[in-house]
Amino acid sequence: MSLRTSKIQLKIPSGRDDAVLVKNLYLSIDPFILALMKNQELDLPSFTLDSPIYGFGVSKVLDSSHPNFKTGELVWGFTGWEEYSLIKDPDQLFKVQDKDLPLSYYIGILGEFLEPLGETVYASAASGAVGQLVGQFAKIAGCYVVGSAGSKEKSAFALMKVDLLKNKFGFDEAFNYKEEQDYNAALKRYFPDGIDIYFDNVGGKMLEAVLNNMRLNGRVALCGMISQYNSLEQPEGVHNLINALVKRVRMEGFFTSDHYHLYPKFLEMVVPLIKEQKITYVEEIAEGIESAPGALFGLYSGRNVGKLLVVVARE
Amino acid sequence: MSLRTSKIQLKIPSGRDDAVLVKNLYLSIDPFILALMKNQELDLPSFTLDSPIYGFGVSKVLDSSHPNFKTGELVWGFTGWEEYSLIKDPDQLFKVQDKDLPLSYYIGILGEFLEPLGETVYASAASGAVGQLVGQFAKIAGCYVVGSAGSKEKSAFALMKVDLLKNKFGFDEAFNYKEEQDYNAALKRYFPDGIDIYFDNVGGKMLEAVLNNMRLNGRVALCGMISQYNSLEQPEGVHNLINALVKRVRMEGFFTSDHYHLYPKFLEMVVPLIKEQKITYVEEIAEGIESAPGALFGLYSGRNVGKLLVVVARE
Repeated sequence: MSLRTSKIQLKIPSGRDDAVLVKNLYLSIDPFILALMKNQELDLPSFTLDSPIYGFGVSKVLDSSHPNFKTGELVWGFTGWEEYSLIKDPDQLFKVQDKDLPLSYYIGILGEFLEPLGETVYASAASGAVGQLVGQFAKIAGCYVVGSAGSKEKSAFALMKVDLLKNKFGFDEAFNYKEEQDYNAALKRYFPDGIDIYFDNVGGKMLEAVLNNMRLNGRVALCGMISQYNSLEQPEGVHNLINALVKRVRMEGFFTSDHYHLYPKFLEMVVPLIKEQKITYVEEIAEGIESAPGALFGLYSGRNVGKLLVVVARE
Repeated sequence: MSLRTSKIQLKIPSGRDDAVLVKNLYLSIDPFILALMKNQELDLPSFTLDSPIYGFGVSKVLDSSHPNFKTGELVWGFTGWEEYSLIKDPDQLFKVQDKDLPLSYYIGILGEFLEPLGETVYASAASGAVGQLVGQFAKIAGCYVVGSAGSKEKSAFALMKVDLLKNKFGFDEAFNYKEEQDYNAALKRYFPDGIDIYFDNVGGKMLEAVLNNMRLNGRVALCGMISQYNSLEQPEGVHNLINALVKRVRMEGFFTSDHYHLYPKFLEMVVPLIKEQKITYVEEIAEGIESAPGALFGLYSGRNVGKLLVVVARE
């Protein structure tokens, strides 16, 4: 990745209908970006060499030839990793509704969906952008919630993450998966009667261990497989899918974009929770567009906590 | 397995309430029986050494101390692999309703459930007890249906199976998986635009190939994993579950016993289809209880076609 400088006219080029020109404020650092670089099929356009990376961001409209967007409005959605972007498909953008909230929230907490129905919930990568919320929503829904987190080395940092899960996010239990020789045994310790819902952010060996510990009619939400995006030549095999059959487990992959129709309902639910401080949302903000590559690769070493984003400009 | 002879009083022992004593007529040969022998957890009681194997069967009530069952009635459900059985938990038995149908049907076609909603359907082990029906139901529902079948060797027998799928069961396409070097390529040939529904009877490498070829929002019904029950020290790994995430595929295991409440509705649908010969149902009947062990192990060499069962007595 390299940082390039070029000039852009801060107006929509003439003849370009239905476009918006934005100033980017916040950029979201997400695991799927590395997956796209590795040409994993993600049902999204691949990155083109020598073009800017794209991803979720919060932006301010500077010029618009689209009837739904006006200069000065704040929007979130796909944008380029650049200071200013010409967005040719603004129909994918959402307007920022509630300006009382920090703008950066719009690419994190307000973009996630979860409806826990079961009794015992396990979330992996639980101190990450999604995991932190999964656990808190599940607690609000009256569930018993356990999260795992970790970092490359046994470290004070991993201890801090586990402490955060229990004492800040209110998980019932939390563990550092890097200290567990045997995931299966760890899960049996925290779920002696099995797991009803697993919110999977990591895939691979952890998913395999979870399948051994699922309860009858359990559900697995496949949200991410960060253990499989990077560095592995051949992804890890899951050898015990027989458990999904025998325990009649439902496993289902999802993208938030499939659920955008629920977004207004989600805002209604979550905005009061944030304002009343019933939910804690941790962000880690890197300064300046030049910090984006480092932030992205930091995601894979477990060095971050909470939602990771880059601030390009504050307004 | 060995055949043992002993004596039984053809009356309910005194003091034994809520039991039925039956004469067994037909015994169903099912893959789960071998899985139980190998102590795979199947959420069913394990077999006990020196006790008769149990499984589905059709039986005639000879004596009853249970208010719902009377002497002379025909029932189906779990019974022993023996000529006469004392059934201590008759609440799991169903009465045979429609005596116009061959009795043996009650442990096969009338025990299966499927509701295809998609457009393209693939069934593995398609010439087996379940697969033959999956394909025909999907055709009735207007789907494009492809089935695979095979036997240990490339043989006239495998050809016959493939022919049966296309010409007797009315599948759109069929192939002998044993002749395919590359399952992935085979599936791409038959499903150039991908698979909406996969009815999985085999698991393992075929499931992996299917996941590569699933369409967005596809569904995988996990019905059986016959490739994984036998002979493999370590079950095969499925390395590409990332596809389930990216394509938002739903995978779900099921047992027919979870759906018994739908049984009356199912009979209503299927009995006319059988009587009007809109559905072809192939059975392979082995004669005599002494043929049961051979029939069970034959299931794993791909030598059978259709529903495999043993006739113990015809009435």
